[in-house]
Amino acid sequence: MTDNTSLLLPPIEPTADPVLAARLQQRIDNKTKPPGALGRLETLALQLGLIQRSEALAFDAPQMVVFAADHGIAAEGVSAFPQAVTLQMVGNMLAGGAAINVFARQHGFALQVVDAGVAADLAAHPQLLQRKIAPGTANICEGPAMSMAQAVQALHAGMAVVKDLPGNVVAFGEMGIANTSPAALLLARLSGLPLADVVGRGTGLDDVQLAHKQAVLTRALARHAEVQEPLAVLAALGGFEIAMMSGAMLQAASERRVVLVDGFIAGAAALLACALQPVTKDYLVFCHRSAERGHHLLLAQLQATPLLDLDMRLGEGTGALLAWPLLQSASLFLAEMASFDSAGVSGKTET
Amino acid sequence: MTDNTSLLLPPIEPTADPVLAARLQQRIDNKTKPPGALGRLETLALQLGLIQRSEALAFDAPQMVVFAADHGIAAEGVSAFPQAVTLQMVGNMLAGGAAINVFARQHGFALQVVDAGVAADLAAHPQLLQRKIAPGTANICEGPAMSMAQAVQALHAGMAVVKDLPGNVVAFGEMGIANTSPAALLLARLSGLPLADVVGRGTGLDDVQLAHKQAVLTRALARHAEVQEPLAVLAALGGFEIAMMSGAMLQAASERRVVLVDGFIAGAAALLACALQPVTKDYLVFCHRSAERGHHLLLAQLQATPLLDLDMRLGEGTGALLAWPLLQSASLFLAEMASFDSAGVSGKTET
Repeated sequence: MTDNTSLLLPPIEPTADPVLAARLQQRIDNKTKPPGALGRLETLALQLGLIQRSEALAFDAPQMVVFAADHGIAAEGVSAFPQAVTLQMVGNMLAGGAAINVFARQHGFALQVVDAGVAADLAAHPQLLQRKIAPGTANICEGPAMSMAQAVQALHAGMAVVKDLPGNVVAFGEMGIANTSPAALLLARLSGLPLADVVGRGTGLDDVQLAHKQAVLTRALARHAEVQEPLAVLAALGGFEIAMMSGAMLQAASERRVVLVDGFIAGAAALLACALQPVTKDYLVFCHRSAERGHHLLLAQLQATPLLDLDMRLGEGTGALLAWPLLQSASLFLAEMASFDSAGVSGKTET
Repeated sequence: MTDNTSLLLPPIEPTADPVLAARLQQRIDNKTKPPGALGRLETLALQLGLIQRSEALAFDAPQMVVFAADHGIAAEGVSAFPQAVTLQMVGNMLAGGAAINVFARQHGFALQVVDAGVAADLAAHPQLLQRKIAPGTANICEGPAMSMAQAVQALHAGMAVVKDLPGNVVAFGEMGIANTSPAALLLARLSGLPLADVVGRGTGLDDVQLAHKQAVLTRALARHAEVQEPLAVLAALGGFEIAMMSGAMLQAASERRVVLVDGFIAGAAALLACALQPVTKDYLVFCHRSAERGHHLLLAQLQATPLLDLDMRLGEGTGALLAWPLLQSASLFLAEMASFDSAGVSGKTET
């Protein structure tokens, strides 16, 4: 056992409820459609009903939270963009110009940006939560990304962020130049998958740059070869935005909120949250399969099938918000579709 | 040449415009995101911009049209549901209780149901267009589904339906017990694909019923072995709702409307429309990959990748409407996202 005694995980209830599940399934099956014909919307309605402990789904004050941080490993030249872009993109989000702003406005999500560890001071802004653990992680190639105390602090800070949010739906996204690197490292170490299968082009590396990134990450993983326990893996290989997002997912699950999970980085945070508390997964709606290499393997680790596969690789939470109307559709068909009885429609021919 | 001289196809312009395409691509690439990071939303924005001949997308009065008809081949026991369900589901749609009603309300689509050939008389209703060609097609196993004159009449009727609709976006769906059978036959004949690869379970056939359906359709296809020309194929093997939907797609394309294409049946109508006028495809947005066997092959024939893959097999146009928010997202990111210049964000590191 490593020293993680100071980490206080919130209690999370499993959503399993055979009686409610049977009632929900019966309600779904009695809708005027062939059994199962609404496919993923049906399984989604079932999951949402179990989360909300109700046959009548209701979404209230949906929240989008973007965690931003920098990464020491950026100094190794593993990203196609300079580190300054993290800060610039936070500014862009606070000014309303990033993709996540557009989709948050489209779908009525309140947007907060959390400075989890940007390598610069940020001016106060009504949509900015200053929760900086440190101005970027240390370079993973040279030592742990953060101390165990910082990892715990970041997890707790993520929990606290969610505690203060209204509503019963939260979507999480991130911004952090080079953060596909810690995400790939977390995935490789927590899953045992070969690094070569999970390292991708991030924001757009060419072949030579990708080979360089793989060499750097191979070195980083070897540097921390002995680390296996989830919290220690986070400290050694993670990032502040990933840690905080994991904490936020754990807290959201403990409050029975619906959690919208975006792409590769958010997936790594989900993997970590589930490593710490497997039942967290009951509350996670996997929204998008990223084009980033390794994300499909990450999803397979979690036995998760995302709602969308739009060949995107932007992060920010964009994949989560684009899937949101499907949750509303699941809620609406459950509430509004006629049943075979009520509509006077014949069922399947008996065979 | 078969006698199709009486078919009047509307003129359809290709959307190709290299100058506009370059302007659109530059606009997309200058948004604050890595190049290509919005994946399918970017190619969608490009297609929509070319359809609308503008860098500023604008959607007006979106329309959902459901074509309903019956099929003589239902008498062969190729569907899991009795034929009466076509009429009952039309009633359900006019009462607002079907899945398509729920999603049309969710997304602000006006809904019309067209009686293309239901095997019963329908009472007048403000949302019902009475365009019945005949009370169901003839049994394909015994002769052509319809006469050549009826095929032309149905195509023209579909064109006329669209002519009278407001707005610049149309989504098409269908209702017709047994209509995966004509759709599979059209696909097999127009593509040359083996029937065994394109016949599926429809609304939920078991293994024995599926084998029966395959035997019936093999017989039907052999009965019309000599028919090859698209209009003659439609008359021999098609359905009134499929024919009318094809005509509607042709007309919508000729008016430069955005056309939302649903699943397997709508896909067969699109395949036929493109066989009659290949340039139609420029205007088609393929929205959903149906779980119905053969749909992925149909999409491959059209070199189309749908936006959604939700394991649904309901038809009605449901897959089209569930994808609609993605078109709005494409429009909004193009309009509202900041550019690298405007946001003061650094671009990719030069290599």
